[in-house]
Amino acid sequence: MVAVLRMGAVSTPITADSYRSVRALTEAIAAPLSAEDQTAQSMADVSPTKWHRAHTTWFFEEFVLTPNLAGYSAFDPKYRFLFNSYYESVGDRHPRANRGVITRPGIDEVAAYRAHIDAAMDELFAAEISDDVLALVELGLHHEQQHQELALMDIKHVLSQNVLDPVYRDTTVERSTSSALEWIEIDGGIVSIGHSNDGFAFDNESPSHQQFVAPYALASRPVNCGEVLSFIADGGYSRPELWLSDGWAVVQRDGWTAPLYWSNEDGEWTHFTLSGRRPIDRNAPVSHVSYYEADAIARWLDSRLPTEAEWEHAAGSVPVVGNFFDLNVLAPFSGVAESGSLRQMFGDVWEWTASAYQPYPGFRAAPGAVGEYNGKFMVNQQVLRGGCSLTPTEHIRPTYRNFFPPASRWQVAGLRLARDRNEQASG
Amino acid sequence: MVAVLRMGAVSTPITADSYRSVRALTEAIAAPLSAEDQTAQSMADVSPTKWHRAHTTWFFEEFVLTPNLAGYSAFDPKYRFLFNSYYESVGDRHPRANRGVITRPGIDEVAAYRAHIDAAMDELFAAEISDDVLALVELGLHHEQQHQELALMDIKHVLSQNVLDPVYRDTTVERSTSSALEWIEIDGGIVSIGHSNDGFAFDNESPSHQQFVAPYALASRPVNCGEVLSFIADGGYSRPELWLSDGWAVVQRDGWTAPLYWSNEDGEWTHFTLSGRRPIDRNAPVSHVSYYEADAIARWLDSRLPTEAEWEHAAGSVPVVGNFFDLNVLAPFSGVAESGSLRQMFGDVWEWTASAYQPYPGFRAAPGAVGEYNGKFMVNQQVLRGGCSLTPTEHIRPTYRNFFPPASRWQVAGLRLARDRNEQASG
Amino acid sequence: MVAVLRMGAVSTPITADSYRSVRALTEAIAAPLSAEDQTAQSMADVSPTKWHRAHTTWFFEEFVLTPNLAGYSAFDPKYRFLFNSYYESVGDRHPRANRGVITRPGIDEVAAYRAHIDAAMDELFAAEISDDVLALVELGLHHEQQHQELALMDIKHVLSQNVLDPVYRDTTVERSTSSALEWIEIDGGIVSIGHSNDGFAFDNESPSHQQFVAPYALASRPVNCGEVLSFIADGGYSRPELWLSDGWAVVQRDGWTAPLYWSNEDGEWTHFTLSGRRPIDRNAPVSHVSYYEADAIARWLDSRLPTEAEWEHAAGSVPVVGNFFDLNVLAPFSGVAESGSLRQMFGDVWEWTASAYQPYPGFRAAPGAVGEYNGKFMVNQQVLRGGCSLTPTEHIRPTYRNFFPPASRWQVAGLRLARDRNEQASG
Amino acid sequence: MVAVLRMGAVSTPITADSYRSVRALTEAIAAPLSAEDQTAQSMADVSPTKWHRAHTTWFFEEFVLTPNLAGYSAFDPKYRFLFNSYYESVGDRHPRANRGVITRPGIDEVAAYRAHIDAAMDELFAAEISDDVLALVELGLHHEQQHQELALMDIKHVLSQNVLDPVYRDTTVERSTSSALEWIEIDGGIVSIGHSNDGFAFDNESPSHQQFVAPYALASRPVNCGEVLSFIADGGYSRPELWLSDGWAVVQRDGWTAPLYWSNEDGEWTHFTLSGRRPIDRNAPVSHVSYYEADAIARWLDSRLPTEAEWEHAAGSVPVVGNFFDLNVLAPFSGVAESGSLRQMFGDVWEWTASAYQPYPGFRAAPGAVGEYNGKFMVNQQVLRGGCSLTPTEHIRPTYRNFFPPASRWQVAGLRLARDRNEQASG
Repeated sequence: MVAVLRMGAVSTPITADSYRSVRALTEAIAAPLSAEDQTAQSMADVSPTKWHRAHTTWFFEEFVLTPNLAGYSAFDPKYRFLFNSYYESVGDRHPRANRGVITRPGIDEVAAYRAHIDAAMDELFAAEISDDVLALVELGLHHEQQHQELALMDIKHVLSQNVLDPVYRDTTVERSTSSALEWIEIDGGIVSIGHSNDGFAFDNESPSHQQFVAPYALASRPVNCGEVLSFIADGGYSRPELWLSDGWAVVQRDGWTAPLYWSNEDGEWTHFTLSGRRPIDRNAPVSHVSYYEADAIARWLDSRLPTEAEWEHAAGSVPVVGNFFDLNVLAPFSGVAESGSLRQMFGDVWEWTASAYQPYPGFRAAPGAVGEYNGKFMVNQQVLRGGCSLTPTEHIRPTYRNFFPPASRWQVAGLRLARDRNEQASG
Repeated sequence: MVAVLRMGAVSTPITADSYRSVRALTEAIAAPLSAEDQTAQSMADVSPTKWHRAHTTWFFEEFVLTPNLAGYSAFDPKYRFLFNSYYESVGDRHPRANRGVITRPGIDEVAAYRAHIDAAMDELFAAEISDDVLALVELGLHHEQQHQELALMDIKHVLSQNVLDPVYRDTTVERSTSSALEWIEIDGGIVSIGHSNDGFAFDNESPSHQQFVAPYALASRPVNCGEVLSFIADGGYSRPELWLSDGWAVVQRDGWTAPLYWSNEDGEWTHFTLSGRRPIDRNAPVSHVSYYEADAIARWLDSRLPTEAEWEHAAGSVPVVGNFFDLNVLAPFSGVAESGSLRQMFGDVWEWTASAYQPYPGFRAAPGAVGEYNGKFMVNQQVLRGGCSLTPTEHIRPTYRNFFPPASRWQVAGLRLARDRNEQASG
Repeated sequence: MVAVLRMGAVSTPITADSYRSVRALTEAIAAPLSAEDQTAQSMADVSPTKWHRAHTTWFFEEFVLTPNLAGYSAFDPKYRFLFNSYYESVGDRHPRANRGVITRPGIDEVAAYRAHIDAAMDELFAAEISDDVLALVELGLHHEQQHQELALMDIKHVLSQNVLDPVYRDTTVERSTSSALEWIEIDGGIVSIGHSNDGFAFDNESPSHQQFVAPYALASRPVNCGEVLSFIADGGYSRPELWLSDGWAVVQRDGWTAPLYWSNEDGEWTHFTLSGRRPIDRNAPVSHVSYYEADAIARWLDSRLPTEAEWEHAAGSVPVVGNFFDLNVLAPFSGVAESGSLRQMFGDVWEWTASAYQPYPGFRAAPGAVGEYNGKFMVNQQVLRGGCSLTPTEHIRPTYRNFFPPASRWQVAGLRLARDRNEQASG
Repeated sequence: MVAVLRMGAVSTPITADSYRSVRALTEAIAAPLSAEDQTAQSMADVSPTKWHRAHTTWFFEEFVLTPNLAGYSAFDPKYRFLFNSYYESVGDRHPRANRGVITRPGIDEVAAYRAHIDAAMDELFAAEISDDVLALVELGLHHEQQHQELALMDIKHVLSQNVLDPVYRDTTVERSTSSALEWIEIDGGIVSIGHSNDGFAFDNESPSHQQFVAPYALASRPVNCGEVLSFIADGGYSRPELWLSDGWAVVQRDGWTAPLYWSNEDGEWTHFTLSGRRPIDRNAPVSHVSYYEADAIARWLDSRLPTEAEWEHAAGSVPVVGNFFDLNVLAPFSGVAESGSLRQMFGDVWEWTASAYQPYPGFRAAPGAVGEYNGKFMVNQQVLRGGCSLTPTEHIRPTYRNFFPPASRWQVAGLRLARDRNEQASG
């Protein structure tokens, strides 16, 4: 599925139908997973599928139904403790790192919980809803979509721990064709950054504001697996001069020798995917690299990562195409052979940027629990742009700011090279 | 179920029937548990129920069937990696602390694995079996019985993590009646310790040998919860002079203020049990205390823990009665009101002894993987004696040596007081 | 010592005299410290005084003398292993966290090492020196000046661990007078950021480049201790809504209830200083706060931290005065009572900015070991500006970028409030 | 210095002279060490030399002078906090792991502290001293002698961290001659264990009591370095079947491939000693092995470690000779070429026994702080017997029970083989 990006249209208006459609996708994502699959937690960052299903439901219960649906009574008052993620203002909660020990409610009770909330939401939709409440419902749906991606990331990590190489969903992926890396020159100047149109956006995408950007060049496509194999072959994981100091410390502490999920047996490289273990496709964009690896690979290629302003400015100023979310694909691929434009900016791999995740000038978090959504994470993380093969289509937009700590690798993250214009000329 | 202990009779002869009977109890123990319950691991010491079911099955496959049943082929060669526990000589294995991330095989596939091995065992039993193989089958059955107790300990720990206080199996436990603590005087001398009769015993119970034991006194019953409540009320958990140095460090590091599973809300003490949260029964033996707590409680009561020789000698020289394993009870209780003998030596709570777990004089581990069964754990552990409410009846015998590290609390462990004879006279 | 800042003049020209002058200050800083004081390391971030003296010396040996002074032979070839800090390209080195176990060379041998290198440097100065070598000498001197500040920070931390409250150097500090906080309005626009004049600057201060800055207001002085006492009294350290998520985790993990070195006995606040334990001066700028605390205090004061561009632009566009380095003072103070300008921008406390430490557009690290100086640390850190009471005067300039991880508190760091112009108007 | 052991004579009577003699040896041990050497702490188990000097002094101040010398006033009241080791009943104390950050008092102030206490002790000796107080002085002197050995162990560990291979004291050690291992047969029976004569002994050596010991054989000498080199060559450190389970975990976690302080460069084995780095002497007893290594080496040699009863019974029933403490030697050596008896039972290396450190039957710790001396450590440790090259002569006796956790290696510990009599016959 290759499409020109449509901005701000998909998620409006918020109706009982659009609510049901988002909720149904969550269940479709969980459907191939057994009760056991949905319960396990393979590291502190990962949450069980069952927890994602319940937490997104709790979000509607806590922020929409309890304060706004007359006569609503909680499904189980202790679920507030079990399924709150990080909202300090909502009270104590089950420790994040121990979500995998919550065996009850089981998947059937979670289904009942979801049905209970959906029925109450039906009631709410049937009544008059104020714009304020509708805005919370919209936030809840975008929240659930974020957890759809997280659920897929997380189950991949869970299944990858198992020597049986379990298959989440079997897919046939064609080997992609090669695409030469070209440098696309982009003019800078005073550019407008941040969300300013009518569609939904998270608070961290605003306010829209001006930034000065010098002329630069962006690579026509993300770095691919073949290039990373060359990086490995050139000793990239054992040369400290290529790495940030913190990154080099992690390489040594954790013994990194390749991207996450890659392994090499008898000289043949494979990686674990949601469709089981597969050979590496040299032409596909690399994914599951940390910021440290992205930075080192870019340095080794005599380039750098783009800033988020450079990325966003480019994404808005040239024609962009991408590969959108499809439950039957679920992997980055390179199906665009034609040249001459920025390709795969959206929907294959999140692209690490050189920018730390910080508030835009004038940003103020909303008061109360909803204000904890984004603002309190604005330190120790790097911004990623563009969306990946697991990202719901509604979350694909040029202004979307994803963020992860620089050592994280379980998200579908890759990189695109950038250069200063004078470098590029001689490079 | 109160019974006089029968030594060495229950587990013989080893037949297809006794095999099936042991295997069936494992499944009965797992039966009330959902797929989710059977998958979770709440700490490194705990294994998922599903893993216990598979590991005990693998034991027969690895040590009995593969070498001894002509034409046997493995159910899945990778199960050797997943379900080996600690046998170094059998090869690499899945890391113990990460058993909770193994979502597949699911509980149905594990049931199929069990059925596959049981069918092969039927074949084996139908043929001529050498005594050597029969001895391995016997070991496998005792091994599985040990895991039956572990499975119950482990699921209790898993369920206890959940604020919903899940119930494994609902039981009605009568409040037990009070029983005064009396001191039973026992003569010492050169006594015989260790297993010497015809029944099955683990290698660590032999060789039978002589030890010199001075005259001593044992309490007529284990320390009960009422006494521990007094210990708490007297500041027992905040007085370093009562504790071993290592114990005091753990008290402070982990913030212990009561036995494991106990909690106090608004002045009322409850504990989490396999039947959910229940009030503390002051007359019941205390359980889920570490060696450090047992040692401190004994010191506070101006007594000490018995050595394992004192315990075993007493258990063999006076009439003993106890409460045996019953899936419909599953908790220690004090149903024996009469006085004048050693009561509850067997089958209520494992009793910590003052003895470190060490080889008996002349002990030699068997060669090969089976020799890893006990010998390699003979350091950093203390011996416990007598069996508990979760211990299969066949594992109740005076010579049985259980062992745990001194900080462990998830086993059903309590204590019985001992005194030197001269102390006891004046105490 | 209050002075108008002179840009780029103090450190030139590089001569034997300026070399000796910098080297002598290092020894003056170490002079009051015993051999024991100079050997201890109180945490991984801290280095022993003796190590600073040797490491700064090794820098000249490794990068200046060995390659450039004919016939130079190393004082001790193993010093390269002991006194290399983090230069991967120079080879293996003694682990940073274990510098405190290096008892030999002792302080006298370190003095001999310094004398040996100084004599060789005399030889070098006596000969013709190329501009390239002179640039390395200049870098070495600035490097040593950075370590002068680090040595003072570090010894403060070492001495603070001791219940005896040792005094590094006794000083009499007058209580400072109060200064009302005023908001200084500053115009934005396209501003020039980074070093562009003739004086010395580190590589991370360039290239000079354009940034767009919106109009803003800066507080006329840093936040003072009285304001932080009010923050504490208002429950600032126990209100998660004021904190970044990572910051709140550290507050809980480390039990922070006040800035580092502060303690409260019987209601009276004191802090540990290089002159021993002293009462808190409510009018003095707060110091020894982490980025997390600075951010939370600013939020509590309905303000924010300035970006580094805002800070630098302001520092260059209004008259600035400050309190400069003086071995007889060594503490931030507020001696400037007059109003109407930006006060104490330089030389009292490093001021945390809202900006993550990242390369300026067009930044490229130099090749080889010297290139490891700054670039490889450009992640997971925040920029601080302005210099503090322990900063050598030559390191006081508007473009200087200091950086620390957001949880670090042992540097003399405080904060200055900023606001958007529209906020400020109504604030 | 080879001598027949004299029991219980050396330390009596306790006089001003014997006091001064013990105190002087402490200072002689510290004399070659610089202020820096005396301040560093290389791991939590290690204490700085300066701390040992002050702590042993504090012991007299706290337990002897303060309660018993009229008009005595503390040298510095805060020293109680700094120099208490682990006496909970004496109050809070500086954390053990951070002793290396205490730079003040310096070594000269510690010398003044020692002189202050020595002068007060002179006063005490000049007056009438009760037997109770004299017993405390005696305990204080034995305590100080234990710290003399600890100080030497500790400084060895500190200096070993330094690539400069510092020399504590230069000594010339002759290469020792070979001595064939013979098996000495010893009769068992009911034997008396524990201290029963008039000389000083620690509380953990009593009460004297009976134990039954089966006939056994002991090796005529400790295992030597040559035998350990063969163990290494035979893959001993990579064969899990030779190791206790806990031991194997430590081997893997810490990467052990040889005893502590050993290293192999270009095929040549050396070890770090108090006289710097030296070649391994194949004939000398191995030292600096953990219990885990001792146990594995014994298993590899088809033997076992003796129990402490076997060791003590043998030491009392055959002529024993040994190499006693000498500041000019400080290393185990094998100077006894004659055969036919148990050699080097005392004074070369502490010999690990198979016995866990537990109270003797009837043991009761004394009330109060002095009762914390031994009893509270009776778990998770193994007993060692015989004394080593760093052990003061007064601490050499057959009943002396030293103890360390099974993973500890910085004490001078080796092993002697034992066998059951029937095994030995055929072995």
